[in-house]
Amino acid sequence: MFSQTAEYALRAMACLALHADERVSSGLLAETTQVPQDYLAKVLQLLAKASLIEGRRGVGGGYQIARSPSEVRLLEVIEAVEPLKRIDSCPLGLKSHGANLCPLHRKMDEAAQAVIEIFDDSTLADVLTTGASTPLCDNGGGGRASLTVDRS
Amino acid sequence: MFSQTAEYALRAMACLALHADERVSSGLLAETTQVPQDYLAKVLQLLAKASLIEGRRGVGGGYQIARSPSEVRLLEVIEAVEPLKRIDSCPLGLKSHGANLCPLHRKMDEAAQAVIEIFDDSTLADVLTTGASTPLCDNGGGGRASLTVDRS
Repeated sequence: MFSQTAEYALRAMACLALHADERVSSGLLAETTQVPQDYLAKVLQLLAKASLIEGRRGVGGGYQIARSPSEVRLLEVIEAVEPLKRIDSCPLGLKSHGANLCPLHRKMDEAAQAVIEIFDDSTLADVLTTGASTPLCDNGGGGRASLTVDRS
Repeated sequence: MFSQTAEYALRAMACLALHADERVSSGLLAETTQVPQDYLAKVLQLLAKASLIEGRRGVGGGYQIARSPSEVRLLEVIEAVEPLKRIDSCPLGLKSHGANLCPLHRKMDEAAQAVIEIFDDSTLADVLTTGASTPLCDNGGGGRASLTVDRS
């Protein structure tokens, strides 16, 4: 239901949130998130444009999350790459409908609202703290070792 | 959030549901739903493949809804053109995650589930019966006259 771009953006932000205090190279990011480097570069560009991450080039360069993971809502991440739109007026432009949606478009808007609320109510920190498993990791830790992708 | 194809499929089904007892020509369908004819033809093909509509060629031909609008769930219409997938295993294929999703993917699955439930709980009939406005129409009726699109 979500685009690959949204999925990749969330993976990248989860990885950077797990390493909130350090810069992560694009190579490590690509490996950990399993996103092709070219594709990842475009996603990172959008995330930087939305001021969610900061990038630095050159030796020791890489990407770092711009705010605390507890201050980044999942909705912000998704909207940085793919706006989730409510339906605020008749998509057919029917004059008598206007902002008074017909029941069909009200139902579609209800679904959009439900999704927006779910992601607006959660921060990156909320989806990292867990007893069982951590995003992208094959063990429960948040350190660099835990970012190793199991290729077995 | 939904693809144009899903939106178009719902429009087409709403139109056919409003004319459940008759055959509607592809020309009238295209005009009423404001969908380009070529695009609409592909959508109708998918809806017919899912046994939601029946088409007949030639003089007097056209499309007709295959079941009562009260027996067609909106989810069926969307899934005919664009499956709404739950996340049932780790999208990264991480071995230790498997069906035990990490909190990030559990959250994404929660959103998918919310949308699926909303559309699974509604039938075409539910979104046609209304006091205010009817899908595709500029007046409250369900007759052919009501399918006139206001171009003013």
